[in-house]
Amino acid sequence: MPDTTFRSSSPGVGELFQLLRDGKPKTRAELASACGLARSTVAARIEALLDCGLVAVVDDLGSTGGRPPARVVLNPDAGLMLAIDLGATHGAVGLVDLGGTIRARDHEHLLVTDGPEFVLDRVVDMARKLLGSIDRTPSDLIAAAIGVPGPVEFATGRPSNPPIMPGWDGFDIPAWIREHLHVPTLVDNDVNVMAVGERARAFPDTADLIFVKVATGIGAGIIAGGALQRGAGGIAGDIGHVRAARGSDVACTCGNIGCLEAVASGSAVARQLRATGRDVSSTAEGLKLVRDGDVDAIQAVRQAGRDLGEVLAACVNLINPSVIVIGGSLAQAGEHLLAGVREVVYSRSTPLAAEHLAIVQSSAGPDAGIIGAGALALDSALSADSVNALAA
Amino acid sequence: MPDTTFRSSSPGVGELFQLLRDGKPKTRAELASACGLARSTVAARIEALLDCGLVAVVDDLGSTGGRPPARVVLNPDAGLMLAIDLGATHGAVGLVDLGGTIRARDHEHLLVTDGPEFVLDRVVDMARKLLGSIDRTPSDLIAAAIGVPGPVEFATGRPSNPPIMPGWDGFDIPAWIREHLHVPTLVDNDVNVMAVGERARAFPDTADLIFVKVATGIGAGIIAGGALQRGAGGIAGDIGHVRAARGSDVACTCGNIGCLEAVASGSAVARQLRATGRDVSSTAEGLKLVRDGDVDAIQAVRQAGRDLGEVLAACVNLINPSVIVIGGSLAQAGEHLLAGVREVVYSRSTPLAAEHLAIVQSSAGPDAGIIGAGALALDSALSADSVNALAA
Repeated sequence: MPDTTFRSSSPGVGELFQLLRDGKPKTRAELASACGLARSTVAARIEALLDCGLVAVVDDLGSTGGRPPARVVLNPDAGLMLAIDLGATHGAVGLVDLGGTIRARDHEHLLVTDGPEFVLDRVVDMARKLLGSIDRTPSDLIAAAIGVPGPVEFATGRPSNPPIMPGWDGFDIPAWIREHLHVPTLVDNDVNVMAVGERARAFPDTADLIFVKVATGIGAGIIAGGALQRGAGGIAGDIGHVRAARGSDVACTCGNIGCLEAVASGSAVARQLRATGRDVSSTAEGLKLVRDGDVDAIQAVRQAGRDLGEVLAACVNLINPSVIVIGGSLAQAGEHLLAGVREVVYSRSTPLAAEHLAIVQSSAGPDAGIIGAGALALDSALSADSVNALAA
Repeated sequence: MPDTTFRSSSPGVGELFQLLRDGKPKTRAELASACGLARSTVAARIEALLDCGLVAVVDDLGSTGGRPPARVVLNPDAGLMLAIDLGATHGAVGLVDLGGTIRARDHEHLLVTDGPEFVLDRVVDMARKLLGSIDRTPSDLIAAAIGVPGPVEFATGRPSNPPIMPGWDGFDIPAWIREHLHVPTLVDNDVNVMAVGERARAFPDTADLIFVKVATGIGAGIIAGGALQRGAGGIAGDIGHVRAARGSDVACTCGNIGCLEAVASGSAVARQLRATGRDVSSTAEGLKLVRDGDVDAIQAVRQAGRDLGEVLAACVNLINPSVIVIGGSLAQAGEHLLAGVREVVYSRSTPLAAEHLAIVQSSAGPDAGIIGAGALALDSALSADSVNALAA
């Protein structure tokens, strides 16, 4: 496929900025060579970036013989990203600098069912307090990204018929954040954001990765060909409602029967344990039984892993990823869940697809959402167009 | 995800060429405005492209009042792409111009099991004859692309453990073609190539499309986020060995049991018809029964569609495409196969994923491979680096 994206103005500024993202100082000559622009053009672009504080000059004091050429480096303090992770029952907010470091973070119990105004009001309040805690103001924010627990029309940032977010359908989240914090905002599905976070944290060089969140529900974020895949309607990765091999008579909350989520989610495991007479009303209580060594609980989690594995085996043949990351609260059951997943994926995927496939537990854990939102906001802030605007 | 691809030399040449791909004449001012380069830069780049014949100047004789600014246009005759489509039992060769038009084509019965030297020798012979038929020589070839019926290590163009291509494992196809025709060659899996061809022919503006080939085997080509997805090991789209909902005891040629290909391929349908006492040894003979109105044959194809639909429903939830194209020989059963696919996909996919999903029969048909190989070769020839090299 041809790349039909064209830079709209000041070609080169965004490219230079991307080259500096690794945090290593570079001379103008190195930058010119790496991006193919003329040295005079690079020099002019660097001046613009220096003028607006996005890059800084470093001196090589330790060098011997002759004056070394000045090197420029990304200035991580030039701006902050606002990273927001909204779940069904929590809201987490972080401030991320241009170097990708989380400078401050906070979270609180927050019900997404309380509706957009109430929830976003709390989030904005948390953001202001965080900014104050590190002596910064909303004017230091360059971009924001927010993950929400439902499908999103990515181009507009509006939730699209989100099943567990009453009152949010079509709500203009970017407009609301812009009105209160004056910052451009990207909105995406929470599991997509977590996939980006997991990749940024643990697999920066992996082009094909599937992140699976197993909690009250089940969803996946897909990175293929190096890019997050959102699909035609922004709902790619919705594996929770794929038909499971087992449990064809189990009703799902979606109205269909036999969905993966109805047999292998944290709530499904809890329900199965209740059927054995145990007093389990949540994923957390089911996990406690697992940790206590309850054989039925361990077997239920292992079987959930197998059910998940059946669906993931199809995903493996279809997408051919090199990494599957299992996250979400039920993943805290650790090897029991992963063992079930691996058992089926490695027996049902084609040998070629399974040969170099790693199936691992999330290493970003509860931070995946904040890290991912920070990375997405940083990407949008550092895109050629945005940097061109900053340096204009 | 950030775009970390940087142009290596003469920035702007490739972009200008991409802008001209639509075949419409454009002034230098229009081009400068569209790609963001300075007018003086655009003028210099256009001179280089004119010098090597890749673009031409058109005169506006019909214009009134004053001399209109000269417009430049892609010169479709500046070079030819060699497009090759290899199947298990056929080889098709086409010559495609820079405007995407097939200028000559041929095909013959060719067994891939005869090994790479024999098969590629025949292909080269066909290419030479085709070139001669339109008074051209191998020196007119700018790029070649070839689809082969097996997994390919895309970076090197070598087949990777291809199950039905004995003798081809690791064979350096690009080196062989380069030695005989002196042209850079891209190699890909045949179904990937057909997906590109189907998109080029019928869905040029669609970013998320799944092409399914149902013939002796079953495979898919996935276009997501506007790009062909090859996966970590070049084997994305291998849906033939996903477990089918039906037939869990049917042995597959891959060594596993219950694969989709073992119950829903053209050969599986033929086998099922033989079990009813009919004398059917191939997909073609099964199709003849369908056309003759044989109820068992129609039901077998419809059921194959349902089996395929079960797996595609999972693909739909995972990838969220806007189009699924069904091709391959069994697709010639037309509405019977598609009806089965639609019946299950629309009942098993989530409402949001199914809402704007079209499931259609291939419109490129047997030409999909040639069209796709031509498009892939054209893309590689028109990539910034290639055009820079041509215009250097």
